[in-house]
Order: sequence, then C-alpha cells, then structure tokens
Amino acid sequence: MAEKTLETLFIDTLKDIYYAERQILKALPKMERAAQSPMLKDAFRGHRQETEGQVERLQQVFEMLGKRAQAKTCPAIDGILEEGAELIEEYGSSPAIDAALAAAAQAVEHYEIARYGALCTWAGTLGHTDAVALLEATLAEEKNADEKLSTIAESANSTAMAAQ
Amino acid sequence: MAEKTLETLFIDTLKDIYYAERQILKALPKMERAAQSPMLKDAFRGHRQETEGQVERLQQVFEMLGKRAQAKTCPAIDGILEEGAELIEEYGSSPAIDAALAAAAQAVEHYEIARYGALCTWAGTLGHTDAVALLEATLAEEKNADEKLSTIAESANSTAMAAQ
Repeated sequence: MAEKTLETLFIDTLKDIYYAERQILKALPKMERAAQSPMLKDAFRGHRQETEGQVERLQQVFEMLGKRAQAKTCPAIDGILEEGAELIEEYGSSPAIDAALAAAAQAVEHYEIARYGALCTWAGTLGHTDAVALLEATLAEEKNADEKLSTIAESANSTAMAAQ
Repeated sequence: MAEKTLETLFIDTLKDIYYAERQILKALPKMERAAQSPMLKDAFRGHRQETEGQVERLQQVFEMLGKRAQAKTCPAIDGILEEGAELIEEYGSSPAIDAALAAAAQAVEHYEIARYGALCTWAGTLGHTDAVALLEATLAEEKNADEKLSTIAESANSTAMAAQ
C-alpha cells in the first residue's frame, strides 16, 4: 500500500467532494420540484448552475495536480441526501415542506463548507497555490448559498407556521 | 398518517439529532485513541463530556414538550461517522492521521451546526422559548468546537507536512 501523506489525504478528499458534488447535481432538480415557493425553487435552480461550475473547478484542480478527475464514494453525502429524500417523501404535501427542504439543503452546504475549508488549508500547506484560489472561490459560494437559504428559511417557516 | 406540520418537523429533527449525538458519543473515544497529538486527544475527550451535556439538554427539551426522548435513525450522521472510521483505517499509522481526524470532526460539527441552527429558528417560530435557550447553548458549543478544531488542524497539518 502506498504511503499515506497529507498529499494523499488532499487527493482522497478531492475525490470525495467530486463524488459529492455530482450526487448533489442529481438531487437538486428533485429538491426544486418538491419546493413550493418560487423563491426556493429559484434558489435550487441557481445553485444547480453554480454546482456545475464547482464540478468544473474540481476537474481543473485534478488537472493542475496531473491527476485524472476521479470520484470516490462518499457515505457522508449519501446519508445527507438520503435524509433530504426521506423528508420529501414525508413532508411532500405538507405546508412545512419548504422549511424542511431549506434545512436539508443547509446540511448539504455545511458538509461542503467543512470539506472545502479543509481542502483550502491543505492546498495552502502543500503549496498548491493555484488550487487554493479555485477552492476558495467554491468555498465562498457555499457560504453564500448557506446564508441565502437562512433568509429563505425565515419566510418558509412563517408559511408553515401560518398553516399550522 | 398524522398531518405533518412545522411542529412535527421540529420534533422529527430533535429525534434525528438525539440519535446523532448518541452516535457521536460512541465515536469520540475511537477518535481520541486514533489521534496522535495530546492536544487533539484532549479536544476529543473534552468534546465527549460536552456532548454528554448536549444529550441531557435534548432530554430536557423533549420533557418541556411533554414528549418521551426518542431517537430516529439519522443516515447523515451514520455516513459522516463512517467516513471518519474509514480514515482511521486508512491513515491510522500515517503522520497525516491528525489532519484527517480534525477534518472529519469538523464535518461532524458542521452537521450539528446546520441542525441546531434550524432547530433554534423553528423553536423560536413555534414559541418554545425555553427550548430556544437550551438549543442555542448547544449551538454555541458546536461553533466553538469547530473553531478549536481549526486551530488544532493548523498544527496537525504542519506535522503531516514535515513528515512528507
């Protein structure tokens, strides 16, 4: 077995988030269909486009490292998205669906914030300066998406409360 | 099937995080054993005690709502912890283990930050004022644990880099 170093940890985690981003790409249209408010539907549609750009950035990072872009199954994102799918099943016809979806999406964002946060730090330590810039751009988008969801959640919660 | 409301969403999510906290309690001693630096070992030991308090707070919230404390399987935390266990297996004898563990623990913290963030907002909207105070206390601890891990990660990354 090849020796495990900070460099292999960095690459393994790139593969993990590459898998995660592609699973998120598949989940977002389902979340958009399940959302009731146009504002939340828009947010999911917009974030899908943003996610496509994030996948491309990861491909660029792999290229910079002279590696083939490769995905590694990530049980964390599978579990997080499974919970989102369960919520759609359970709350799909409830006035609380948007509150549930916004929270599920924030769990996804927070997973990505944790992963990209570590990747940015490791890229810096390892001297992969070009990669840092790309990873930081994505990290900023994920933080921004999380904040936007917090705002949408407020009105989703009021809607759910009014129907209760 | 009982109608799904913001109140049921709040209670379902309490059950989800109650399950998550108890799984985290089981995982922390394994992370502590796998950690190499005394600083990271201490952080995991300290967070275990903190987590015990967080479980008790959740039991108090259930009691305030007149409900029995009940756990509901949470695939998200199962996946996040499974990734941590895989890292221990793959990096257990590598100088990058602490960097890997700190990042895995930050993924756990971020899941909790997302969940407690939603729970605090919902408790406020639903008028469960006493619950808000308890949930906010835990949210503050999770944010603090995440920041502490960021600091520890810096030295863990340097250690891993020096061995590379």
